[in-house]
Amino acid sequence: MEISRPRGTRDFLSDEMKQRKYVENTFRRVFENYGYGEIKTPIFEDLSLFTMKSGEAIKEEIYHFKDKGERDLALRPELTAPVSRLYLNELQRSPKPIKMYYFGSCFRYERPQAGRFRQFWQFGCELIGGRSPEAEAEVIAMAAHCLNEIGLTDYEFHIGNLGIIRSLLNDAKIPGDEQGQIMGLVDKGDVEELGNLLNSMDISVSLKEILLKLIEIKGHNEVIDKVRSIIKKCEGAFKALDDLEDLLNHLETFGFTNYIVNLGIARGLDYYSGMVFEIYVHGLGAQKQISGGGTYNLIEIFGGEPVESTGFAFGFDRVMEALKKQNAEIPVEGHVDVFVAPLSGNMRKESFKIVQDLRRNGISADVDLARKKVKKLLSYADHLGVKYAVLVGARDIEGGKVTLKNMESGNQELVDLDNLPIKLRDELEMD
Amino acid sequence: MEISRPRGTRDFLSDEMKQRKYVENTFRRVFENYGYGEIKTPIFEDLSLFTMKSGEAIKEEIYHFKDKGERDLALRPELTAPVSRLYLNELQRSPKPIKMYYFGSCFRYERPQAGRFRQFWQFGCELIGGRSPEAEAEVIAMAAHCLNEIGLTDYEFHIGNLGIIRSLLNDAKIPGDEQGQIMGLVDKGDVEELGNLLNSMDISVSLKEILLKLIEIKGHNEVIDKVRSIIKKCEGAFKALDDLEDLLNHLETFGFTNYIVNLGIARGLDYYSGMVFEIYVHGLGAQKQISGGGTYNLIEIFGGEPVESTGFAFGFDRVMEALKKQNAEIPVEGHVDVFVAPLSGNMRKESFKIVQDLRRNGISADVDLARKKVKKLLSYADHLGVKYAVLVGARDIEGGKVTLKNMESGNQELVDLDNLPIKLRDELEMD
Repeated sequence: MEISRPRGTRDFLSDEMKQRKYVENTFRRVFENYGYGEIKTPIFEDLSLFTMKSGEAIKEEIYHFKDKGERDLALRPELTAPVSRLYLNELQRSPKPIKMYYFGSCFRYERPQAGRFRQFWQFGCELIGGRSPEAEAEVIAMAAHCLNEIGLTDYEFHIGNLGIIRSLLNDAKIPGDEQGQIMGLVDKGDVEELGNLLNSMDISVSLKEILLKLIEIKGHNEVIDKVRSIIKKCEGAFKALDDLEDLLNHLETFGFTNYIVNLGIARGLDYYSGMVFEIYVHGLGAQKQISGGGTYNLIEIFGGEPVESTGFAFGFDRVMEALKKQNAEIPVEGHVDVFVAPLSGNMRKESFKIVQDLRRNGISADVDLARKKVKKLLSYADHLGVKYAVLVGARDIEGGKVTLKNMESGNQELVDLDNLPIKLRDELEMD
Repeated sequence: MEISRPRGTRDFLSDEMKQRKYVENTFRRVFENYGYGEIKTPIFEDLSLFTMKSGEAIKEEIYHFKDKGERDLALRPELTAPVSRLYLNELQRSPKPIKMYYFGSCFRYERPQAGRFRQFWQFGCELIGGRSPEAEAEVIAMAAHCLNEIGLTDYEFHIGNLGIIRSLLNDAKIPGDEQGQIMGLVDKGDVEELGNLLNSMDISVSLKEILLKLIEIKGHNEVIDKVRSIIKKCEGAFKALDDLEDLLNHLETFGFTNYIVNLGIARGLDYYSGMVFEIYVHGLGAQKQISGGGTYNLIEIFGGEPVESTGFAFGFDRVMEALKKQNAEIPVEGHVDVFVAPLSGNMRKESFKIVQDLRRNGISADVDLARKKVKKLLSYADHLGVKYAVLVGARDIEGGKVTLKNMESGNQELVDLDNLPIKLRDELEMD
């Protein structure tokens, strides 16, 4: 019997890890350049952390279990709740705003399908205690900066503000549970079903028309005036629209203008309070959303003092998918550059000394450990994808020399052993 | 009610993450310089993977649960079994040897105590299909290289070979379960209890004396002759001792001689077949072992063709503990270098443009997002630990200038806005 990996999970081999590492490191660099510090929380949390945030129904979609002490634990399905918990436990008294980022795996139990896995990775951040249009603009600019740095160009950046529709519904005194149903369908983008739902509710024809118009609006900052002409007398909605306009102006200052205003973004969860955004990449099928975020008040739900946060996360696996779909060239870091090949059995020890000397000089190098025949050695070096082979022969060594072979061009030259590390460092930097 | 993190787990804040990241990145660099490629396996595996390797009793010590499809899953307690599974599923036909490394969290359910956590990290590797003294020597040299690179000096590197004692027990026809009991006590280092056990078994007095002598032997390569004089006529033991001597000679070639031969290392698990090693750091109390490994045949247990592997892992948390105990200076990477402070409200937009310009130039920089008063701004910049503040005042900006303040010396100078990124890059590289 051969054991295989659990359904819906993946193994990553070295080539794929290199590509993921490149994207991870690029995101890290950008986040850190924006003043974010990395944090890490446990893989599992108290189940109640997630039911408090998302309701009991979340239990159907996640891994949860009792530990040997009968505690209800859950593998985290996302990282916003754990980061809020960490803030509550350890950072409430720190000077604000607090900028934190994370990269880690999350888990959900669902039918595996294209682009959806039971263990998946999120790369995201929280900016706690600094709600302002400039804070929101900076977060959005950073998300776009990340995508630009990895060379992903074919994306759509949609920005909305939940306060507009929420205010209209509040003004019309629509009960909370009905608002939840409405926002759920807005989130799904199911206009027909939304129309049916609104018809079945005690809602004026004019409000219904306004809502259906609003969620269809998409465009650049010119849509602000259009929205203003639609929403009429609702003060709360005007306030939210002003916030959105303020945000768009700040985005210009932060150097990001490639957005689409979309009032049909609802994010599905009650604790979002104002600005929301989602990033889509077409060609990814049903999993086209590679990122989502916004401004919300979650910490209050967990029993803390109210404090607003702005945060978002990249679905890391989807970002990788999007890059592949776009055929982006991903520079790969950290392969083996040099293979040291003894040309006879008595040159093995000499080869080990040489390879250790290279490694101590920071050069990535491998050596024959399996006493292969010379012919097999070079095909193994080829398989490793090294750029150079160092051929160690008895006669050369007597004269303090080795043969350096460029694996691409096939060129060979005799090199003084003493100069080998410097020579190789120069050559490798030239690549 | 305030939710806290689950018992036995930890949150890591930014300062600690930076230190861990430094050690992680250093280990990565060394492993990659030795030709290892990173792989990643799922956080949970089929429970049977671990019971096949370690027996049913392991269930008492790990997190295992049924998923919604009634599959028995376990949070991985270690990474050797998952990597063997991955090899079996995906790499059996690859040219050998295969060099893989991993860094990931593992889980065990046990009473939390100093230095032991329910989620902990392992950094390790497997070299599959290349058993030879040179392969074993290279693995050991790499482990030592890692510790030297992070500046950990106060460690003891113990090397043994299980074949010596195993052969003596086999020659004396000691049954397998009794051998297991003996090796268990050898592993614990409990000489008195071992004496009692041997007395209770049908073992000759001379073999008992030989065993008790062997496990007490500790020293450099001079102990080889001493061991040879003790083990007398057992052919298998002589063969294993020759292997050990061969390994020690190769270690010299690979440039590592700071080891202690210790035949009392047993590693506790049946699938180890020859060379074993453990690294200790004193002053860590009961958790003094920061690394362990050896050569073994595990893949056969999982149903694959027999192939020997050499592997080891660092207990990453213990390495961090050891560094702290030793007061090693850990260079910290990736903090914010610059804070851009508007000296009045109408300078905010200007400040946002400046901070974005710095970030696009690869400089880590933060800016006021919370409309703080000027006095509070500089104390916030202090809290962030930046090296420079850029003071943006209306009169300076008219002349295309800003004030650059060195936060350590307090020195200030007027700088052309156009030159600011280059100037800061120069200054920061000088640090």
